[in-house]
Amino acid sequence: MSAPAAERPEAPGSAAAPQPRYRQLAALYEQAVATGSLQPGMRLPSVRELCQRHGVSLTTALQVLRHLEDQGCAEVRERVGYFVRVPGRVTLLPAAREPEVHEPLSPDPHVFAGINERISVFLEKARLAGPGVLDLGSAMPAPALFDAQALNRLAMRLLREQPDILVYGPSAPTTHPEFQRAMAHNALGFGLSLAPGDIGATHGNSEAVNLALDAVAAPGDVIAVESPTFFGILQAIEVRGLRALEIPCSPHTGLSLEALELAARNEPRLKAVVVVPHLQMPQGSVMPDAHKERLVALCVEYGLALIEDDIYREFVESPQPLRPAKAWDRPGDAGQVIYCASLSKSFAPGLRQGWMSAGRWHARVQMLKFARTRNMQTWSQLLAARTVDSPAYERHLRRMRTQLREQREASARAVAQYFPVGTRLSLPPGGISLWLELPAGLSSTRLYDEALARGIRVAPGPMFSNTGRYDHFLRLSCGMPFTPQVEEGYRVLGELLERQQAGGYPAGAGCLRAVA
Amino acid sequence: MSAPAAERPEAPGSAAAPQPRYRQLAALYEQAVATGSLQPGMRLPSVRELCQRHGVSLTTALQVLRHLEDQGCAEVRERVGYFVRVPGRVTLLPAAREPEVHEPLSPDPHVFAGINERISVFLEKARLAGPGVLDLGSAMPAPALFDAQALNRLAMRLLREQPDILVYGPSAPTTHPEFQRAMAHNALGFGLSLAPGDIGATHGNSEAVNLALDAVAAPGDVIAVESPTFFGILQAIEVRGLRALEIPCSPHTGLSLEALELAARNEPRLKAVVVVPHLQMPQGSVMPDAHKERLVALCVEYGLALIEDDIYREFVESPQPLRPAKAWDRPGDAGQVIYCASLSKSFAPGLRQGWMSAGRWHARVQMLKFARTRNMQTWSQLLAARTVDSPAYERHLRRMRTQLREQREASARAVAQYFPVGTRLSLPPGGISLWLELPAGLSSTRLYDEALARGIRVAPGPMFSNTGRYDHFLRLSCGMPFTPQVEEGYRVLGELLERQQAGGYPAGAGCLRAVA
Repeated sequence: MSAPAAERPEAPGSAAAPQPRYRQLAALYEQAVATGSLQPGMRLPSVRELCQRHGVSLTTALQVLRHLEDQGCAEVRERVGYFVRVPGRVTLLPAAREPEVHEPLSPDPHVFAGINERISVFLEKARLAGPGVLDLGSAMPAPALFDAQALNRLAMRLLREQPDILVYGPSAPTTHPEFQRAMAHNALGFGLSLAPGDIGATHGNSEAVNLALDAVAAPGDVIAVESPTFFGILQAIEVRGLRALEIPCSPHTGLSLEALELAARNEPRLKAVVVVPHLQMPQGSVMPDAHKERLVALCVEYGLALIEDDIYREFVESPQPLRPAKAWDRPGDAGQVIYCASLSKSFAPGLRQGWMSAGRWHARVQMLKFARTRNMQTWSQLLAARTVDSPAYERHLRRMRTQLREQREASARAVAQYFPVGTRLSLPPGGISLWLELPAGLSSTRLYDEALARGIRVAPGPMFSNTGRYDHFLRLSCGMPFTPQVEEGYRVLGELLERQQAGGYPAGAGCLRAVA
Repeated sequence: MSAPAAERPEAPGSAAAPQPRYRQLAALYEQAVATGSLQPGMRLPSVRELCQRHGVSLTTALQVLRHLEDQGCAEVRERVGYFVRVPGRVTLLPAAREPEVHEPLSPDPHVFAGINERISVFLEKARLAGPGVLDLGSAMPAPALFDAQALNRLAMRLLREQPDILVYGPSAPTTHPEFQRAMAHNALGFGLSLAPGDIGATHGNSEAVNLALDAVAAPGDVIAVESPTFFGILQAIEVRGLRALEIPCSPHTGLSLEALELAARNEPRLKAVVVVPHLQMPQGSVMPDAHKERLVALCVEYGLALIEDDIYREFVESPQPLRPAKAWDRPGDAGQVIYCASLSKSFAPGLRQGWMSAGRWHARVQMLKFARTRNMQTWSQLLAARTVDSPAYERHLRRMRTQLREQREASARAVAQYFPVGTRLSLPPGGISLWLELPAGLSSTRLYDEALARGIRVAPGPMFSNTGRYDHFLRLSCGMPFTPQVEEGYRVLGELLERQQAGGYPAGAGCLRAVA
């Protein structure tokens, strides 16, 4: 089963030079995992236990655990401790730690066109394939993960309490005050102090990001985005004649601030940067607080709007709630950060309820919202407000995080079991999808077509960039419970990739394959 | 009470030349109305009765009734007959029959900017005035006009039947097939044959019109609009850097096709024309079928997209359902008409459920919709689909039309009673608002501020154009039941206008006033 240790980059045993104490200890545990004496999901010693067991300082003990985490060997579980991460086959390599380059990624730095056509083609193919398809392509939690019962009870209560709520069209095109108060109150819980009046309801975070772009940029302007990034952001940029400048991203810390600064200095038409700070889509990185702070400062310095798309915050496994970059922004009208959020992922995709707080662009965004889609349903605003305000919501999120973790781990195990040797993957610290790097030469576009013919939908890498760099990448959804049907889907995907690999390379031409 | 007959334009008794027989007979009935022997709401003789009574042909009898209708003396009630229209004081003059000019209205034909600022100022003032305001400004039927009970029953049933409907986020960003089928079926009922697959759900008709503009025009392009027109259309044009070309409109037949053709010949960047064919907002005109047919032909000839905003169709009082211009369009992908509709006015404002069928721009519109706001709620789509499909819906619309007619008539009576002499108004054949022309020199902008200070909101004329021509026009909503509070609102508005008039003119300077 296990491949030679030498195949692992920075494999602990392969370094001859003397190592610091924490690296030596970490190597011990890594080997225990590699040999199977520590099984996936088993608890690792706590910091205190490490101190006692190995006679090291607290700092060293913490370094050990952090290093194991960095190596993809361990993972933190909120308020519980460190556990052995899903190892899969040892041939499942962690993603590269840092951006390969520090310059903006586009070959032509203004490549921006084509994403809509590509997305439309993928969507149309999926539509034609019909409804029976196993959907491993959409980054959406399955309905089973939500508390539909509680929501329906609330809905019935609301219908009885406000019998004309479905027919009532507010005459003033403003966000419902109860929704504003509830979101402001909720935001306090993750370190964000917002005036309720600055909060505007939107149709999902998708409309929020679109309005933000409308507000800050005119056709021909340049918008910096993460690379790879959520295709919806590229679409929004393309449809309004803006140009996307793709900035490299670390799969661990997100956007390269150096590359962004370089772009800000050299691109006079750069107007804004769009960032998903928590569980960056598709890489799954979480931006460290220090980066957020520096990012905001950088945007203030260069006069860039920071469009913060904080759609996955609730899904991060973290002992404390994570603060968005907006927390480092100046308040109110001085604000440089347009904060966009949504309840579509965490509460009820079916309601399409998002919101935003647009800082200095608030009035303009409000005007644009009114011109395009007028007011929002009172109905969905009140359902969202009352849910978020209840203590049951935090419990629901905890349950959801746990279930999503199990689904991610099961998916990662399936990838390790069925996918070709050399597939790279770092388990993100939360969320609903995995971002895989396939062995060189494999095409996820080709996989898309072949998988669809077998009744499986995936999200191929080229959906996430205009650079053409990600054809050997693949996003897989872990939104649905890991049923035998889903596992079968992974098996088929692995089979298709191995066939592709076999076809793509002359037989026996040095293509290393572990025995399945 | 009654002013001298000579004040009426084309007053029947004032013409010395011999008149055709139908005019003579019509004059008879007009005088009977003027003298009060025929009271508002009384039934007029039928065509057959006129023949018998006056020994005239069917054609002449019909001409009599049509002429009375044209003069604002009579009105048709669906399947019942002709009735005496609200006469008010005889000083309430009908609106001018034809556009004053046949050339595009903008002083600079590319005036297009400023509407958003103006709208925002009005909205902000209304917001600051707080929630206790009597809203005579919004063209929205009051919640009382809808069947909230039936809708809530349907909602509860849907929640029981599909318990995860609120949490279910469709993976494919398409419109729900049940919604598509229901809307296509409903459209058949008014003479429109659409493929269900060509129907896309939108956030109200506002998003539909916005998507249509996105699809057909790029910044700098010119869009022809009616003048005056709904401010939302001007906003949508302005926010995307398009230029509005205002085309004159008859208050009776709508858009001047001659002026549109002139514009099409002379303006190379003209890309589309936006038309509200039924109950044009704010004038209330209904475009005759022959005009619709010619309009479509004209758009085909000049390669213009026809964006048909058919939001008030259900509110027209007409013996047969009215066919939209889209009925004269070529089918499917060849189609030059982008048809936009909404259930916000007729069914449930609170759901914000609109739809569109975009002809040759269908794929592009679908892509743009996905990029901006993704899919629509299944919830509101199914509520709309099931309501429209039920026979109760037609009954609801009939009730609504009757109630709205009563409200319009009561409002018109109040205008006649309280507003200054010389106020002009033609009762539209349906709908939720009146468009008043105030005597020269009066300002509806000033009225807006003064009325708001007295707790009443109105929609001043300058909201409906960029030309600055409509400051002595005013839109008043008839969406809410005509309560004593509403009547008091009209009284206060009349008082404010009379004060304005008194202040605006030197005392006794020929300002004719009837005794109230």
